[in-house]
Amino acid sequence: MRTLLALVALTLCFPAAPGLAQALSDVSPALLEDIALGSRILAEFGVVDGFGHVSARHPTNPNHFLMSRSLAPALVTADDIMEFDLDGNAVDARGRSLFLERFIHAEIYKARPDVMSVVHTHSPGVIPFSVSKTPLRPLFHNAAFLAGGVPVWDIAKEFGSTDMLVRDSGIGKSLARTLSDKPVVLMRGHGDVTVGPDVKIAVFRAYYTDVNARLQSQAIGLGTEVTYLGADEGAKADAINLAVIDRIWNLWKQRVQPGLGK
Amino acid sequence: MRTLLALVALTLCFPAAPGLAQALSDVSPALLEDIALGSRILAEFGVVDGFGHVSARHPTNPNHFLMSRSLAPALVTADDIMEFDLDGNAVDARGRSLFLERFIHAEIYKARPDVMSVVHTHSPGVIPFSVSKTPLRPLFHNAAFLAGGVPVWDIAKEFGSTDMLVRDSGIGKSLARTLSDKPVVLMRGHGDVTVGPDVKIAVFRAYYTDVNARLQSQAIGLGTEVTYLGADEGAKADAINLAVIDRIWNLWKQRVQPGLGK
Amino acid sequence: MRTLLALVALTLCFPAAPGLAQALSDVSPALLEDIALGSRILAEFGVVDGFGHVSARHPTNPNHFLMSRSLAPALVTADDIMEFDLDGNAVDARGRSLFLERFIHAEIYKARPDVMSVVHTHSPGVIPFSVSKTPLRPLFHNAAFLAGGVPVWDIAKEFGSTDMLVRDSGIGKSLARTLSDKPVVLMRGHGDVTVGPDVKIAVFRAYYTDVNARLQSQAIGLGTEVTYLGADEGAKADAINLAVIDRIWNLWKQRVQPGLGK
Amino acid sequence: MRTLLALVALTLCFPAAPGLAQALSDVSPALLEDIALGSRILAEFGVVDGFGHVSARHPTNPNHFLMSRSLAPALVTADDIMEFDLDGNAVDARGRSLFLERFIHAEIYKARPDVMSVVHTHSPGVIPFSVSKTPLRPLFHNAAFLAGGVPVWDIAKEFGSTDMLVRDSGIGKSLARTLSDKPVVLMRGHGDVTVGPDVKIAVFRAYYTDVNARLQSQAIGLGTEVTYLGADEGAKADAINLAVIDRIWNLWKQRVQPGLGK
Repeated sequence: MRTLLALVALTLCFPAAPGLAQALSDVSPALLEDIALGSRILAEFGVVDGFGHVSARHPTNPNHFLMSRSLAPALVTADDIMEFDLDGNAVDARGRSLFLERFIHAEIYKARPDVMSVVHTHSPGVIPFSVSKTPLRPLFHNAAFLAGGVPVWDIAKEFGSTDMLVRDSGIGKSLARTLSDKPVVLMRGHGDVTVGPDVKIAVFRAYYTDVNARLQSQAIGLGTEVTYLGADEGAKADAINLAVIDRIWNLWKQRVQPGLGK
Repeated sequence: MRTLLALVALTLCFPAAPGLAQALSDVSPALLEDIALGSRILAEFGVVDGFGHVSARHPTNPNHFLMSRSLAPALVTADDIMEFDLDGNAVDARGRSLFLERFIHAEIYKARPDVMSVVHTHSPGVIPFSVSKTPLRPLFHNAAFLAGGVPVWDIAKEFGSTDMLVRDSGIGKSLARTLSDKPVVLMRGHGDVTVGPDVKIAVFRAYYTDVNARLQSQAIGLGTEVTYLGADEGAKADAINLAVIDRIWNLWKQRVQPGLGK
Repeated sequence: MRTLLALVALTLCFPAAPGLAQALSDVSPALLEDIALGSRILAEFGVVDGFGHVSARHPTNPNHFLMSRSLAPALVTADDIMEFDLDGNAVDARGRSLFLERFIHAEIYKARPDVMSVVHTHSPGVIPFSVSKTPLRPLFHNAAFLAGGVPVWDIAKEFGSTDMLVRDSGIGKSLARTLSDKPVVLMRGHGDVTVGPDVKIAVFRAYYTDVNARLQSQAIGLGTEVTYLGADEGAKADAINLAVIDRIWNLWKQRVQPGLGK
Repeated sequence: MRTLLALVALTLCFPAAPGLAQALSDVSPALLEDIALGSRILAEFGVVDGFGHVSARHPTNPNHFLMSRSLAPALVTADDIMEFDLDGNAVDARGRSLFLERFIHAEIYKARPDVMSVVHTHSPGVIPFSVSKTPLRPLFHNAAFLAGGVPVWDIAKEFGSTDMLVRDSGIGKSLARTLSDKPVVLMRGHGDVTVGPDVKIAVFRAYYTDVNARLQSQAIGLGTEVTYLGADEGAKADAINLAVIDRIWNLWKQRVQPGLGK
């Protein structure tokens, strides 16, 4: 209904902007819906609060990506998704306000052709690790993707004293370099970025990075030696997680769309 | 109503599959309902998230057990319960997807004739203990069943580097051996398994193993000596817990079936 | 409506039991309601789960007290309240099941004429302190009532290895002796008991004992010296808390009676 | 609707009290609504429980301020807001009960002409820091406003053994002196006060002071060195937070007004 009204509004108010309709017309409603669901799922579980964002690479134009207008993640719907180029320019802004940190996404899509989705959070489990000398490591199999190591990016290393935000392409490039070929990078005093071959997996990784961080804090608190997943265990367990992701995604979907699927 | 529709659907769609109807026809609806309730209760309290499962031994055929098709625990209903033999084969799969780790259940039912229900969780309270040298011990009477000791099973001991999953009978047998005659076994970097003489008790144990683990973490954090329940206290207190289990089960039932019983 | 039906049921089913109606007829509906509200409030905030109970001394017969039949605290209504003498005997049981640990209440009412309400919980904040050598102490003014010291009662001291429960008058007497003239006593490996001059205050104390315990754990975790309220500060701050208790009680009431008062 | 009824009631019941209507008639409904929303938002997120309050300086009379009658923060509506002078006197009390600690607000408005809103909480994240020698410091950019240092005010320093409350102008002045030119002051064994150039920012600061305190506790618990935001980073990041505050405020507003804005 809301979508219908939005389309009517679009038709009525922007008769001269066929470019936009064309641009997003290449994108399946299912992908727009996944981006919106991912935002709302991470909000539902407290991995994001009023800040954070989920994006996807454009399915037919790999030099563009899709991301909500500036909006709290809990409120994002498919109608809020906009299209951007890899310099962070909106294809058709129409006065909508943009996320300042869209350069996180743009530069990672540039640097990592394998990445089809990017998530940025202020995950409360992760932030303590982002400011600590204690490395984040996987201690259970759902977080197996952490087994290759989790780099920590400190904006101050390259840019000195800043407002901590990834507000331009240069800062985004630096972050993408630290991420390297990994699925997760922590941002000192800020949060993290997770990436994946689709939206579900990038969201899954954002969720389980947060969970693993909390569990690792508790394990360290027990005061005795902690056994982490080995690199080989990590690789094997991650493959399985990816294979069963629909089971948890469908659950999460129902949590944020109470009227559906039940 | 949903059950009724499902039965109608079964009658309409599977006229040639009387075997299945026959197999589950020996099972009381109350038992199917308890398995489904147990799944949803553990999800409601965060003891399981998208993963984990509850099973019961078949009431008239001790070489079979009952367990949901592959589904997030919060979504399991009585209609989703399937029947398996102790090699983990579905009696009548009809294309439904199966939990990969059903061998946890199969091998414990084989090894432990006293066990009538098995629960597997990724309990967030428990995982830190599964990777720590600090043993899980009962510090309050509701977790008295832990007083006989809580073994930790490390899949790597016998199987080296794996994907951490109990994906066949051999691995299940190894886990069942470590469980031995205890009510709970921790799985390193994975979660736990609890067992009991009925579904309610196995679920109660999964819940209070999680609670006790969190409380023990906090008690250790206070930095002074902790007093645990003695073995004899544990045995005596456990007997009482089992006697009053309906009080908490009825509460939990209302939490996950808001329309009923109020 | 439920109350009305219950009364009708009473009239229809127990025409020969005028004694009961007479016994509870001296009790204002407001007091019965406060006992039920107190139970549901403590359940709402997780201070009790499936176990725990709230009682009040009988307003006109100081040798009797009022307490729910055996029921999870979240489910208690005014209709569930029964009357007991100070030996723990139900005045008119009519087949209803009784809380095993009613002797906690009976013996405290015997020993402490000033006490008009008793609450027993398995407060998750408190349990770690009940098994630790670290004493529970007030670190903020809402928990000022703890400033006189919080005794810990260990059932094993006097009774050796038990099932941990206060299942008779002798054990209840021992607990009441350790409580002495204080408002709170911890029970090793079990929970706590709080008392007060009315139901609201006993419930307030159960709630803030739990909150203070959690905050104290966190303060200790910071690793530097902690400043607690002095005894004199405690006495003065407690007087104020008691004076403004209706503000928080009215809030809590609305939380557990969503349809009312808004 | 409720507001309308209240106005009708006012008109009907207090025809002889035009002074009040006049006093609040200078205040926009939006400001009254923000004060009420701020109270309910902080309650929704557990930053306040039954205690705590949000105020705003009067928009046209800088020597007056606006604050709810004594009421649990979760229940405050625009109709509950009253007007006070800077000695803490109600302009038109009409028998409504007043917050005892309104002198916190009065004396800060006196001492800090830049402050347009004051929030007082018993923030559970903050209380452990208020009694610890460990200073609260910003470890992520949303709490950048803490970078100038967070003073701790101990009522006992100047007033000896008290009931811990800011119950008169003299105690309020002492607190305002310790706050000095900062945005946040902790109160030993009690909670905190945050201030800002408008209600949204003072509420934002109360929320993120609580969040930062919890994250800092966890970071300290990891047992290795913690990197905090530098003073210059803090100043720069705070400027950005203030610029994007509407994104999170609109989210919070929807959380406490479920029927609106969706």
